Amino acid sequence: MIKTIFFEDQKLRILDQSQLPERVAYLNCSTVEELSTAIKTLKLRGAPLIGVAAAFGLAMAVTDYKGPADSLEEYFQKIKSLLASTRPTAVNLFWALERMDKVFQVNKAATQQAIALFLRKEPEHMFAEDININYSIGEYGQSLLNANCRIMTICKAGALATCGYGTALGVIRSAARRNKIEQVWVCETRPVLQGSRLTAWELKQDSIPLTLITDSMAGYTMSLGKVDAVIAGADRIAANGDTANKIGTYSLAVLARHNNIPFYIAAPLSTLDLSRSDGLQIPVEERDPEEIRQIKGVQLSLPDVEVFNPAFDITPNELITAIITEKGVIRKPFERELKKLK
Amino acid sequence: MIKTIFFEDQKLRILDQSQLPERVAYLNCSTVEELSTAIKTLKLRGAPLIGVAAAFGLAMAVTDYKGPADSLEEYFQKIKSLLASTRPTAVNLFWALERMDKVFQVNKAATQQAIALFLRKEPEHMFAEDININYSIGEYGQSLLNANCRIMTICKAGALATCGYGTALGVIRSAARRNKIEQVWVCETRPVLQGSRLTAWELKQDSIPLTLITDSMAGYTMSLGKVDAVIAGADRIAANGDTANKIGTYSLAVLARHNNIPFYIAAPLSTLDLSRSDGLQIPVEERDPEEIRQIKGVQLSLPDVEVFNPAFDITPNELITAIITEKGVIRKPFERELKKLK
Repeated sequence: MIKTIFFEDQKLRILDQSQLPERVAYLNCSTVEELSTAIKTLKLRGAPLIGVAAAFGLAMAVTDYKGPADSLEEYFQKIKSLLASTRPTAVNLFWALERMDKVFQVNKAATQQAIALFLRKEPEHMFAEDININYSIGEYGQSLLNANCRIMTICKAGALATCGYGTALGVIRSAARRNKIEQVWVCETRPVLQGSRLTAWELKQDSIPLTLITDSMAGYTMSLGKVDAVIAGADRIAANGDTANKIGTYSLAVLARHNNIPFYIAAPLSTLDLSRSDGLQIPVEERDPEEIRQIKGVQLSLPDVEVFNPAFDITPNELITAIITEKGVIRKPFERELKKLK
Repeated sequence: MIKTIFFEDQKLRILDQSQLPERVAYLNCSTVEELSTAIKTLKLRGAPLIGVAAAFGLAMAVTDYKGPADSLEEYFQKIKSLLASTRPTAVNLFWALERMDKVFQVNKAATQQAIALFLRKEPEHMFAEDININYSIGEYGQSLLNANCRIMTICKAGALATCGYGTALGVIRSAARRNKIEQVWVCETRPVLQGSRLTAWELKQDSIPLTLITDSMAGYTMSLGKVDAVIAGADRIAANGDTANKIGTYSLAVLARHNNIPFYIAAPLSTLDLSRSDGLQIPVEERDPEEIRQIKGVQLSLPDVEVFNPAFDITPNELITAIITEKGVIRKPFERELKKLK
């Protein structure tokens, strides 16, 4: 299994996803600033992975802290805010930082060295937990699928978005192990092309049959009767089940509904944000217009053309057939069922 | 107004759309083979324009014919078949070639020189007619729009798809002249990016306000209440109103329906094919997988990844609010109304 993140020689080593599929290269982050730039520039992506990476970053910061002992907490909070500001939509980031904060609070009477040690262990737990969670999601999810299943997916909710195995791709992997997968339709996922660059690469590595399409072909492919289910990941799920995920997910949900195809969200419970009553309360990140005007430095349109570039969209709960979590498959009414699980 | 095609020094000169928006460059076609390669490789595009270009090509072939007089008709039919084979979906191509065949049949007793002269005049008529037709479509179409209108469109149904002015973009131009356009949402239109490359350029030339989005953002933009109408062109319309147009059009129609937004098709009656009872009878062209694997020579995915690349999709008539033609706005039942007009 490909390693997305690990610690070595006091440095955080991160798989540089911006270089895939051409090169498998690792990036060294020795400081929190380097890490936060790597997150902002999408060298690493995917809600669960960002959370664990940020937690590693906090641990690293405390290890390397050189100031007076009585300012350590203030410094910790400053670094926590810096990391929280890297990406606004994925909730796992905030969840992971809060979890680190709890570890800090419980141990803050200890020496800096001891605190650093406890903080270092926490992301390692999160890492192992995340993989286990993904296996569980995979198992529950595959139980929804029949033989010879043709799945459509968007973005990259695979090993590369998580610590390993994946959420939506975890379901596909678990189904593939049972020989249930006939075909995976991979939407290329403009603007950053996580589908064509990353998901296609991951599936190929696992020898799972896939066909790449542009996002604009998803509807037509469904209308031809070639899709049995759509499975997507999530960056944040509101209390009522409304889900923020990669831009284009909402369109897939509407198209699936119109074509009577089940639409599933696969995500760990850490993605759930009960403090947001519905999808309208979830902040949606807008990114650099250059992502649409160019691809890899190649100009696609006029250099000064006006652009709207939301990185995510909101899928209303009524379009979601079920939410697949590590504790089971949640069906409507989502509000009640999600609350129970959390 | 930009010239998409003209005759000069016995050569057909064609605006090379594959070089836009970087360069406004013209391509010389001195032979039918050069012209048919230009059509196949998308140097010129758009159903009405392809039809007129192919007609010019037939005239050019007869002018340059060097064989025995009694083989001229056979040669004419051979060239007609060659041109007919360039693109399978747009019906205007076949319509234009049939119109040239009629001119040939009526005049075939004349000398080669006289036949060539008649054939040369026909595409010039078509050219002038096409522009007039587009003005009419524009006028009828703009009457459907209110003030401060925010329109979404896909592909490039503008001057560059036609002999000038445009179909869907003709409606937008006519509405803009009456200050009705607040915003045009341009879908980039993967894989060949006619939206970001060509439609954005055309609108900019006319100072019509536009915002570029990826195709995957269309649904979310609609869900935010930012779109008042969707207008698309057509490559072929079946007798029942089912419409073939650029891949992604069907998705826009489903998304518009889900968001209670009117969805219009703007197209000349030459696009109508009464011989096809419904959309299932329209052949959909599949194009080179490299269009998805690469953009302008830049690799986007694995070089050997499996790809599905339909260039068009079929929008069922029930998702179309009205069809805007040069003879008026057609509403349901389309079958009866289209038959009447044709």
